Amino acid sequence: MSELLYVGKRIPRSDGAKKATGRAIYINDLKRPGMLYGAILYSQHPHAIIKSIDLSRAKALPGVRAVITADDVPDIPIGFIKDNRPLKKGKVRSMRDEIAAVAAIDPDIAAEALTLIDVEYEPLPAVFTPEEALAEGAPLIHEKDAKGRPLSDNKLKLPWKLVCGDVEEGKARSKYVVEHEFRTTFVSHCCLGTSGVVAEFDPDKNLTMYSITQIPYLAQGDYLEALKALGLGRSKVRVLCQTIGGGFGSKLDTHCYEFIAILLAYATGKPVKMQFSREEEFLAQATRQPTITTISHGCDVRGRLTFRQVKMLLDNGAYTSWGATTPSVMMVPVSSLYRVPNVLYEAEIAYTNNLYSQAFRGYGNPQATFAVESSMDQLAEAAGIDPVELRLINANQPGETTPQRFKITSCGLTECIEKVRDGLGWEQHQKDKAEGLSVSSHKARGMGMASLIHVGGGARVYRSDGHGMIMKLDDFGKLSVFTGAVEIGQGTESTIRQVVAESVGLPIADVNIVAHDTDICPWDVGTHASRQAFISCNAAIQCGAELKKKLFSLAGEQMKVAPDELDMREGQIFRKGSDDEPMPLLKVLKKAHFSTQGKMVMAETFYDPPNEMLDREMKGNLSCSWAFGCHGVEVEVDTQTGQVKVLNYQAAHDVGKALNPLFIEGQIYGAAVMGTGMALTEELKLDHGHVMNGRFTDYKLLTAKDKLPVTPIIVETDDPAGPYGAKGIGEPGCVPSSPAIANAIYDAIGVRISQLPMTPERVLKAIMEHEK
Amino acid sequence: MSELLYVGKRIPRSDGAKKATGRAIYINDLKRPGMLYGAILYSQHPHAIIKSIDLSRAKALPGVRAVITADDVPDIPIGFIKDNRPLKKGKVRSMRDEIAAVAAIDPDIAAEALTLIDVEYEPLPAVFTPEEALAEGAPLIHEKDAKGRPLSDNKLKLPWKLVCGDVEEGKARSKYVVEHEFRTTFVSHCCLGTSGVVAEFDPDKNLTMYSITQIPYLAQGDYLEALKALGLGRSKVRVLCQTIGGGFGSKLDTHCYEFIAILLAYATGKPVKMQFSREEEFLAQATRQPTITTISHGCDVRGRLTFRQVKMLLDNGAYTSWGATTPSVMMVPVSSLYRVPNVLYEAEIAYTNNLYSQAFRGYGNPQATFAVESSMDQLAEAAGIDPVELRLINANQPGETTPQRFKITSCGLTECIEKVRDGLGWEQHQKDKAEGLSVSSHKARGMGMASLIHVGGGARVYRSDGHGMIMKLDDFGKLSVFTGAVEIGQGTESTIRQVVAESVGLPIADVNIVAHDTDICPWDVGTHASRQAFISCNAAIQCGAELKKKLFSLAGEQMKVAPDELDMREGQIFRKGSDDEPMPLLKVLKKAHFSTQGKMVMAETFYDPPNEMLDREMKGNLSCSWAFGCHGVEVEVDTQTGQVKVLNYQAAHDVGKALNPLFIEGQIYGAAVMGTGMALTEELKLDHGHVMNGRFTDYKLLTAKDKLPVTPIIVETDDPAGPYGAKGIGEPGCVPSSPAIANAIYDAIGVRISQLPMTPERVLKAIMEHEK
Repeated sequence: MSELLYVGKRIPRSDGAKKATGRAIYINDLKRPGMLYGAILYSQHPHAIIKSIDLSRAKALPGVRAVITADDVPDIPIGFIKDNRPLKKGKVRSMRDEIAAVAAIDPDIAAEALTLIDVEYEPLPAVFTPEEALAEGAPLIHEKDAKGRPLSDNKLKLPWKLVCGDVEEGKARSKYVVEHEFRTTFVSHCCLGTSGVVAEFDPDKNLTMYSITQIPYLAQGDYLEALKALGLGRSKVRVLCQTIGGGFGSKLDTHCYEFIAILLAYATGKPVKMQFSREEEFLAQATRQPTITTISHGCDVRGRLTFRQVKMLLDNGAYTSWGATTPSVMMVPVSSLYRVPNVLYEAEIAYTNNLYSQAFRGYGNPQATFAVESSMDQLAEAAGIDPVELRLINANQPGETTPQRFKITSCGLTECIEKVRDGLGWEQHQKDKAEGLSVSSHKARGMGMASLIHVGGGARVYRSDGHGMIMKLDDFGKLSVFTGAVEIGQGTESTIRQVVAESVGLPIADVNIVAHDTDICPWDVGTHASRQAFISCNAAIQCGAELKKKLFSLAGEQMKVAPDELDMREGQIFRKGSDDEPMPLLKVLKKAHFSTQGKMVMAETFYDPPNEMLDREMKGNLSCSWAFGCHGVEVEVDTQTGQVKVLNYQAAHDVGKALNPLFIEGQIYGAAVMGTGMALTEELKLDHGHVMNGRFTDYKLLTAKDKLPVTPIIVETDDPAGPYGAKGIGEPGCVPSSPAIANAIYDAIGVRISQLPMTPERVLKAIMEHEK
Repeated sequence: MSELLYVGKRIPRSDGAKKATGRAIYINDLKRPGMLYGAILYSQHPHAIIKSIDLSRAKALPGVRAVITADDVPDIPIGFIKDNRPLKKGKVRSMRDEIAAVAAIDPDIAAEALTLIDVEYEPLPAVFTPEEALAEGAPLIHEKDAKGRPLSDNKLKLPWKLVCGDVEEGKARSKYVVEHEFRTTFVSHCCLGTSGVVAEFDPDKNLTMYSITQIPYLAQGDYLEALKALGLGRSKVRVLCQTIGGGFGSKLDTHCYEFIAILLAYATGKPVKMQFSREEEFLAQATRQPTITTISHGCDVRGRLTFRQVKMLLDNGAYTSWGATTPSVMMVPVSSLYRVPNVLYEAEIAYTNNLYSQAFRGYGNPQATFAVESSMDQLAEAAGIDPVELRLINANQPGETTPQRFKITSCGLTECIEKVRDGLGWEQHQKDKAEGLSVSSHKARGMGMASLIHVGGGARVYRSDGHGMIMKLDDFGKLSVFTGAVEIGQGTESTIRQVVAESVGLPIADVNIVAHDTDICPWDVGTHASRQAFISCNAAIQCGAELKKKLFSLAGEQMKVAPDELDMREGQIFRKGSDDEPMPLLKVLKKAHFSTQGKMVMAETFYDPPNEMLDREMKGNLSCSWAFGCHGVEVEVDTQTGQVKVLNYQAAHDVGKALNPLFIEGQIYGAAVMGTGMALTEELKLDHGHVMNGRFTDYKLLTAKDKLPVTPIIVETDDPAGPYGAKGIGEPGCVPSSPAIANAIYDAIGVRISQLPMTPERVLKAIMEHEK
């Protein structure tokens, strides 16, 4: 292959200038003619009967155009198992329950109208932990399932189980065994753009959603269901994604507020905007799935893993979004991070009167890896093996198939571990530690490490993992590329642009990405599972090949050369391996177009990766390629305050091929900060279901001022299935932060922190308990 | 063929509700964030040296963001022969000459700033008719041509000549010969939406034009030239057409105001809107080409035409837009309306200091047909043959090739003439006339008739007459159809939708037309020459066939039927000729998509009709099919006032096939009213180059209150090249109105009116002169 012109280069993103100069249109900026503003009244109780709702005062307020409750609208079951409704009827089950909604001519009037709605409640006993929820005699949160069948307890009928080999046999073979419980909590996505939507019906009752969803095509289906409920079965839905201020999985489901916007738009005949405040975003978006994980782990005398057994209990909150399906990814590191022959994974999920959770960068992997990798260090200690050594002994290798039937093709795990080890100065640290140099007065230093495995080549979690693409080359040599990919800040559009320029052979300025419109862009399952660059770029290469075939057939005729002898670079068509004068693309296009029975050059394709859905046993090659990585940190723990300071953060990732190192580093840096936030500071505190810290003054998000000293390390393994060898990297970077830091804290002070976040209070308390 | 479900049906237009409820976004409604408002300073003299322009006071006005003249911008030659500039330098040549432009934060400030610009002129002698312009010693309007070569007179170097057979030989064979001069004048398009545009650069200096052009793809090229002049050779142009409030050819060129918007947007870095007032629209849009036509005509003793000789002199105005090319269409009726063996057509065009003219519904055909068909009645009288009879004797017939080498395939001219004759009650009228019943006191009644020929199957006036199309079928059975067609009120999108629903076999509600965006929709040469339905629907049928091929290949696999045995109707796929249960489209799509290595159904195509460009001799089959028609009117002429009242208006058109009779009738009705306005009331009056009646209070446009009693008559001839047999019908309806009315006036009062419009003043004057 000749030298790459665009792929692998540090090319700034194409949406950068627009965003930096304030020219990008976020949902917050969007106004539609005649637009009304919606507002939602939430519950005042975590669990209560709604005895009555009096809307009369709200309706009488001048400027109010509609006030609705569940009584005014058809039944629209939503959510993963359809146990949720946009507006709640009869009873509330959490503090975020939507009871009524208003549309008014301005946001202040809408807010005032909410204060004029009088609701009478009859409070019910409530449960706020999965253990309470599953206890005998616990108050029942849902009386019936989606099909109307009575429920007798709060256990979600969605059990997850994976059995690989025989853990009992594995235990019997073990020389060393450890067991421990780990807990994670509510964490918010904290997208800088709060949730919002504008719903608009045209006079023919077709619906346009100006949206920020990560799943425009699946959302289209959800909205269509709502239209059917409204009796608009023939209506069409168009989803127009706006510039999105962060996704991180928060936009992988359709939300109550979106359906409420539809209902208000339908009621008023006007476009209706819903735009969350920051407080609303904390309350009524959704969170990471809180987990209680019991893990046990064994190895033989040589440190080879013998088994891994994991039991999880998840807090579902009051309704079921995609959070309830995160065990499908939690079991990935459990079964397949390091070579472990026998695996048993079980997860149970309980309804509570808490907020509900959903998809969040890593999709459960960070919670699971926190347990797996903390436990690995425990096992290393039990076995008297250096934790790095234990990881290297068991590291996955190319060509292996894991117990869950994942086919590891390319794998740079060993290299990642070694690079992190060296980047940290692990060996020197061990020496220093042996000499007692790692503790000075009340400040102790320690190092820790954790690895990760994640899907890196798509993930067939939905029946299609595919991506359609259309290309249209115009008379001026501009190539429009229609993609269903959603740009949520990760640089997808810029990456596709680079790959198209490279693979088609055009100057990058001539590649024009058209996205964010379901009417125009072919189907894509959504921006999730770190799949977007992998899938879209593979689609782009495939579509580009189709385009070039057509182009070279025209050019070949004009140049009197067989089409398959032609190639293009920077818009110049040339005969491969010859020094003949190349033919400019524009010349070929114009000649082909401006003649009798002229021709234009367009192409369309659908790329669907050859990966597999998990079978009934939860096995199968879910992804075409697997991403690996290793994070290592050095921390300083203040034993008087419990404060943990990260001194060095080495983040090595096997990315297959860095399509754009700038973007990869951005992904790694951002994810490591997010992972570290989850590790050290972030918790959405709920007290009896009430959000206690729903603002950025109280919710401790790491920001630029925290200057986390991350060194991104790119390991390239040239994945056979990836576009130019690339694998997904969107999520992995936030997976191993917590265990790496927990292991470093342990290394520093000998205290194992098993619960996130590892706040100063919690660390100090653990130190004091340890010293007892 | 099975019964048609959509084609031929009176289905209301898909944009109707939107337009009727005020939901359509016209350029007038459009606001972009940070948008500035532009305004143009026009000349105060029809011909003058610009001695100085002082911008200082205008620039000092608060709220003004830019004031520019030609001195501030690069040279951007525009127009058909590049003799025009967005802003004039050194000299003005007409009252519409753009001298300076302002961008300000609101339109009032922009208007005020114009009043603060001080221009010093040195007036020059000027010419206001082509005769004056071509006279010896006339002041020179352009000193140089586009290549800088000196010019010595005002004659446009664009002579038009067509020679078919030998007119001298024809004359010699003639038994009867007539000769006469006819004149037409300035007529305005009077689009209800005035001209406007928003030009916006993104931070990467790519340009988006929110436009109302009828030629988005050609305009793209023009704008690109402007960008090159600005040093932005790598920049891209996107044209986004807004809802258009009427076109009629006025938007077939790019205009000075559009380039001025670009220049102001570039100067300010902000989006800039230019929006004409009605007065500006009359002054600075463009008009129909005024003509002076000398025609002579002959026939043999049996009434068979022997020759036709036409000489035209056109007033070009001060700059050259597409008006200068209208002779290419004027020669169509001259050479090919009725069978005439020997034809000589010559046209000369002169620069004047008037406003310039351009494309206008019919593209010169109404002016030419006014002469041809008035003259036919003169010839009938000379030969003593009933005018209807003379037309029937000479009517074109299917299978003929005309002297200009037009291949007449389908032709319903005879039927049109007969239907109009019968609809008018021609024979009874002749009897009444013979009995003196057609005159009562000072009110005389008369009947007249005129036919037409026009391109009906595209027109290869540009090197491509093609149309690209993309189709994308989504999981919900919605078919997005990407078309470059521009909806200017004629119902093109609705027509394409019907044809797609019919030919693909979908419910019409599932067909979604995506248009008006050059980034997304493949190339189309523009909405001109009555080509849009013909070309776009042919493209739709071709693209639909491609789509069905792919769909039936998937369906065939699923249904175990050979794909070519399948067909679809209303979204149900069935085996042709069998009673088997059909397979719903949705089922096929979902099965194909939601499986490993899934498939989606998309298609793209480019349709370019098999018509020919005129050769150097101006011959060739310009259009794939030819439209014919005949209009007949009965008028009442008040001989005391000269007032002409239309009592009956029969308009028969050979449309090949009425894809939607509702739309056809709308086209015929609207065009007949437009043609009648041109005939009786419309004239943009220029006095020494100044517009004297640039408002609707003074410019007499016919409106709904005039209730013209038009009876549209649809004649179907099933054209072999047309989509479902259809031909174009956009322009023909305004072609024969003037001669039909002139002939009826003559029939009523025996006075030939040879100059348009036939106002009461002019009719009365003619009566008085006749009576002398």
